[in-house]
Amino acid sequence: MEITILGTSSMIPTKDRNHTSIFLSHKGEGILMDCGEGTQRQMKLAGIRPSKIKKILISHWHGDHTLGLPGLLQTMAGTAYEGTVKIFGPSGTKEHFEHMMKAFPGDLRTLTYEIKEVEDGKIYDGSDIIIKSYKLDHNIPCVGYRIEEKDRRRINVNYVKKIGIGEGPLMGKLQKGENVKFKGKEIKANDATYIVKGKIVGYIADTNLCANMSKIAKDCDVLISESTYEEKEKEKALEYDHLTSVNGAEIASNNNVKKLVLIHFSQRYKTVDKIEEEARTIFPETVCGYDFMKIKV
Amino acid sequence: MEITILGTSSMIPTKDRNHTSIFLSHKGEGILMDCGEGTQRQMKLAGIRPSKIKKILISHWHGDHTLGLPGLLQTMAGTAYEGTVKIFGPSGTKEHFEHMMKAFPGDLRTLTYEIKEVEDGKIYDGSDIIIKSYKLDHNIPCVGYRIEEKDRRRINVNYVKKIGIGEGPLMGKLQKGENVKFKGKEIKANDATYIVKGKIVGYIADTNLCANMSKIAKDCDVLISESTYEEKEKEKALEYDHLTSVNGAEIASNNNVKKLVLIHFSQRYKTVDKIEEEARTIFPETVCGYDFMKIKV
Repeated sequence: MEITILGTSSMIPTKDRNHTSIFLSHKGEGILMDCGEGTQRQMKLAGIRPSKIKKILISHWHGDHTLGLPGLLQTMAGTAYEGTVKIFGPSGTKEHFEHMMKAFPGDLRTLTYEIKEVEDGKIYDGSDIIIKSYKLDHNIPCVGYRIEEKDRRRINVNYVKKIGIGEGPLMGKLQKGENVKFKGKEIKANDATYIVKGKIVGYIADTNLCANMSKIAKDCDVLISESTYEEKEKEKALEYDHLTSVNGAEIASNNNVKKLVLIHFSQRYKTVDKIEEEARTIFPETVCGYDFMKIKV
Repeated sequence: MEITILGTSSMIPTKDRNHTSIFLSHKGEGILMDCGEGTQRQMKLAGIRPSKIKKILISHWHGDHTLGLPGLLQTMAGTAYEGTVKIFGPSGTKEHFEHMMKAFPGDLRTLTYEIKEVEDGKIYDGSDIIIKSYKLDHNIPCVGYRIEEKDRRRINVNYVKKIGIGEGPLMGKLQKGENVKFKGKEIKANDATYIVKGKIVGYIADTNLCANMSKIAKDCDVLISESTYEEKEKEKALEYDHLTSVNGAEIASNNNVKKLVLIHFSQRYKTVDKIEEEARTIFPETVCGYDFMKIKV
């Protein structure tokens, strides 16, 4: 998987930070997480074509996470998008979507899309990935997401060579985890193959501290978390249902996360060095995201 | 007056061109004409504070002219905007606005605003400027605008010095165009003052050719006009209710315009040199606008 951070600002964008959006590419297919104002232009600057997007995961309907949605969808409709774009969001998403279409009239007739409102649990189960959503604690309905690559079996090449199994149906069965018979002998899948663990990416959007954060974060290879404020603003963070540098780092630290990427910074910070520094004292594998940052997973 | 072009793209923004928006500054007060996606960030890049905006003139509700509105208003509300922002737009604007607020929940309680739906005629008459709107011919309700500075009387310094009138109430009356008595003699305002013609700025938004274009353009010092297409795309322009390079130039040429600024270019054009060239063969005082261009009026 490859992540492109498209925007890292909270409510008010700055010269350097666009509203929040994250593009995740998996085997050539794109998952867009949130879509703040200006996202379609950020995609253009990042060289990502809207036709790549197959799923859009909306955390909540505050403008810094959704204002780019109507423009992006209209552009997708206007440029012969193929297939069905699946849109996921918290409860109320269908109603917000309807108002959005009435506010900004555009021709979406050529775009096939499905909207699904989600709460806690598995929301998509594909051939290679699973997506889960978890409710967060914000002042309007808000969810975070977790994208899990499925584990894959890879052939133990030395082993099958020694036995003499070549490419073919037997190899296919082994790869699916089935034991097979070859020259009268039972060949166990667990001997002929090994498991490659799928990678996990989590996204904690706007929230106060809550139990579901850990469910999103658990064992993530990359955890992306909002971190609107420095630690000294923790009262403000509580008041506005947001996290500080330390909050994000503690969640990562307690949940076996490999790498933490902080985003969604308040406009008050010209640089976010302090946020990164504070988080690293608790969880050294922290970086502050920046617009157009790329992360291999 | 000073104009800052904030965006010059039509429906699909490009790397170099944001959605349409034009900021006009008059005696420190700002008038924003249209507000496509990303406008608030363009303002930040141009160094224009949202608190400067006193009036917003919406041409029509297609996304490339309005998607930046909710974010901008939420930012204005979030940064202690003072006064009342007056929002003008074509028929249907109030309904679009309501849907917009329901689509993107944000706290506008701290922002005082008024919405007025306009058709043909004078929509604002202030101490220094008059604003007029005119219906255009697009596929949804659309209006263009015309901002006229009022003529001012300036004191003919040599004349009043010779007579001996100094600063004071008499001078004030002369400046208002009233004749006065001084040392038993009638002093005519027309002798003691001279008229400085107010400047005129016109904005022709998305439209097919229509009679009202001339009403907007007449005697403009600066006419800003959409010019989505090169002349060879004139069939497409007709089909989508847009203008070509030549359309804009002819309107300017026929209406005693001093300077024509073309904007709202299709994403298909990497450069707009051809559009400028085509327009200049008809109206030499044409320039193609670009993002962050400034024009003194």
